[in-house]
Amino acid sequence: MAADQRQLHLGAFLQGVGHHLAAWRHPDVDPRNALRFDHFKQLARTAERGKFDAIFFADSLGVPEAPPALLARGLLPSYLEPLTKLAVVAGVTERIGLISTVSTTYLPPFHLARKFASLDVLSGGRTGWNLVTSGTEWEAHNFNLETQVPHAERYSYAREYVDIVKGLWDGWGDDALRFDKEAGVVFDPDKLHVLNHQSERFRVRGPLVSERPPQGYPVIVQAGSSADGQALAAATAEVVFTAQQTLEDARGFYSGLKAQLAQHGRAEDSLKIMPGVLPIIGRTEQEAKDKYEQLQSLIDPVLGVGLLNAFLGNIDLSKYPLDGPVPDFPLTEGWQSRQKLFVDLARRENLTLRQLYQRVSGARGHRIVLGTAETVADQLEDWFVNGAADGFNILPPTLPQGLNDFVELVVPVLQGRGLFRTEYRGHTLREHLGLARPRNQFE
Amino acid sequence: MAADQRQLHLGAFLQGVGHHLAAWRHPDVDPRNALRFDHFKQLARTAERGKFDAIFFADSLGVPEAPPALLARGLLPSYLEPLTKLAVVAGVTERIGLISTVSTTYLPPFHLARKFASLDVLSGGRTGWNLVTSGTEWEAHNFNLETQVPHAERYSYAREYVDIVKGLWDGWGDDALRFDKEAGVVFDPDKLHVLNHQSERFRVRGPLVSERPPQGYPVIVQAGSSADGQALAAATAEVVFTAQQTLEDARGFYSGLKAQLAQHGRAEDSLKIMPGVLPIIGRTEQEAKDKYEQLQSLIDPVLGVGLLNAFLGNIDLSKYPLDGPVPDFPLTEGWQSRQKLFVDLARRENLTLRQLYQRVSGARGHRIVLGTAETVADQLEDWFVNGAADGFNILPPTLPQGLNDFVELVVPVLQGRGLFRTEYRGHTLREHLGLARPRNQFE
Repeated sequence: MAADQRQLHLGAFLQGVGHHLAAWRHPDVDPRNALRFDHFKQLARTAERGKFDAIFFADSLGVPEAPPALLARGLLPSYLEPLTKLAVVAGVTERIGLISTVSTTYLPPFHLARKFASLDVLSGGRTGWNLVTSGTEWEAHNFNLETQVPHAERYSYAREYVDIVKGLWDGWGDDALRFDKEAGVVFDPDKLHVLNHQSERFRVRGPLVSERPPQGYPVIVQAGSSADGQALAAATAEVVFTAQQTLEDARGFYSGLKAQLAQHGRAEDSLKIMPGVLPIIGRTEQEAKDKYEQLQSLIDPVLGVGLLNAFLGNIDLSKYPLDGPVPDFPLTEGWQSRQKLFVDLARRENLTLRQLYQRVSGARGHRIVLGTAETVADQLEDWFVNGAADGFNILPPTLPQGLNDFVELVVPVLQGRGLFRTEYRGHTLREHLGLARPRNQFE
Repeated sequence: MAADQRQLHLGAFLQGVGHHLAAWRHPDVDPRNALRFDHFKQLARTAERGKFDAIFFADSLGVPEAPPALLARGLLPSYLEPLTKLAVVAGVTERIGLISTVSTTYLPPFHLARKFASLDVLSGGRTGWNLVTSGTEWEAHNFNLETQVPHAERYSYAREYVDIVKGLWDGWGDDALRFDKEAGVVFDPDKLHVLNHQSERFRVRGPLVSERPPQGYPVIVQAGSSADGQALAAATAEVVFTAQQTLEDARGFYSGLKAQLAQHGRAEDSLKIMPGVLPIIGRTEQEAKDKYEQLQSLIDPVLGVGLLNAFLGNIDLSKYPLDGPVPDFPLTEGWQSRQKLFVDLARRENLTLRQLYQRVSGARGHRIVLGTAETVADQLEDWFVNGAADGFNILPPTLPQGLNDFVELVVPVLQGRGLFRTEYRGHTLREHLGLARPRNQFE
């Protein structure tokens, strides 16, 4: 292995007690952990022991407006506010990066900028912001709106929003603070930069009430893969989480997005693409398969069919037998591409209704890599060396078990192949990811 | 000492490297601590060792629009976002309460409710929310406004805001979560309570995406002492921080506010009044006086006069000699009561201009208690037993030194007199303060 061998990056996507829809029902899992500090503390420390680049929390700004009886069968009330969760964990970790989702749609940019700036200061430069826009009616209803902001408008706001946030992060020069006791001067007044952003949508004077974040800007992460989402990512993102299922799709996405960077004057390695992967790890292939089957068997049919109904545009599937073929049904005005995807999948693989909802809902649409530590590492390496990924966002099916397995079994294999660090070299998330520290736009 | 002796409550108001305006210039103080996690971690642990009810962080949503050269002489960039700071500290403490200021003026209530709910879950019920409204132009300019929301309107919004936040905290029944793996039921669907608040100002559906906070509601704290502020406090607050200077004023405030509780059907002990106190502690009276004089001598004349100018309505005082008498000047349209207060003080005590700004700016308007541990305890006991306070919010002049002194020297004296706990009895902030856990309004 060469000293300068390209290495992959790893994120630990920590979701309640696991990503699998039925994780909470697994006999080894304590679902109450989703609400315990000790759980997240141990997860973060495990990921840090495994030298992951970062942990990552997702978010949702509301409870879906579905029948409570359906929600009750699978909605884990685990969306504690992710930046709060991240801050609590920051205090008990040393090196690992800390990435949280925060939507631009319902939070004033001044609040967002200072929250990340503050956590970046307190964590010694370890934060990343997963920029999302909120795309559901039920979230809009919690924020004074009858109906959500249209897709294109959300993305145009988001673009402006990022500029404002960066302008606020640049509000203090990097060496503004002097703390000269003798002269009685706390900071250099020439290094206080008032943003004074003025548009129809946003009027934000600035600056923040604290110094520039140690990383300059917290790392900017995105996960949108629509055309609007990719355009925003090409302009602003430094890490992109994706959800392709096949090497071919992933390579297409990877090269397509990287090709868009040049028009923003950006180098290819200034953006890291990290597909999501749900690993099922066994000591043997058979053990891994058994683990997966056990989880799949725990998916509640009512919930599985309910989710499939939702994906397919609220078609009533309850009259069809679960173990019969997937019926024909008309396309609705909803998610036509999704409908077609699922029906094609069912036809191609000759799936029953039960098999279809299990395929769709178990891993919530993410790539599953299943096998021993060696074969799981093979599957990751395959994508990494074949132009499909700069690393992976690992979605443990159960927590803490799935993360423990990955750190104890797969990480050493990747390290042995020279594909992954054996020790942190830097201290900030930017350093872990090999991303440059941005210059201050005012200097 | 009787077993049921009434005991006082203590908050540790932690502000950067200390409350005294010149704290950062003190030779023993490292001003860069204001931006270090380890500093706040040690402070919180010291306060916990001292069995304080809670630590407390203030906030400001912007940099004052004053000349940068003046700001540079005294503005400590220490307003890291306080809830983030509190969350980081939550992970490294066990029992102490965690109170943070958050303004209702520029943050959607859904965000506020879930942040406190999340931190209450993760900290095991230790949070308190210091409700403020934002009252400066420079904060308004960071949130899309040309000019701030008028005082009365801010308070009427705040009243509605508290109702919404409580409604969101009640969105889940106390025992809603079942996690019944066998039946596949996460929660009891009958215990999901949709708020559906609809007014001209706020439309918030709810519920939150997490369980009811362990305390039911995080403890509600306030510090406003205007008539609007007192009315809001009488209706909603459980702790009030105040800033009276004399026993007489403090008794008046105490009995006046407690008298307003009955009209809301509240008992007197459902609201704890805790005046702010800046303690200067020496091994002898003389040592305490010397400490105070040293701090006072470090106040920058430019800053001191600048602050006095601001208090007095931007009268130009720079042409008058610092060690001469306070000049006569006309009342302006600004803070007339404040002008009169300061001029009367200067006349009564025959103060020079320098002495006046030192009196006004050093402790930023809070009561100073100066002396040995015994005489400082005497002064606290005096207010506590004479109907002026249920406890005190302690403002250490320097940090960590001022807090260390209080915990090591004064707390044992208070404990020896039976006035303060020697060990935590409860686990939540409500339990520390002797406040009841609120019922769920939907049940």
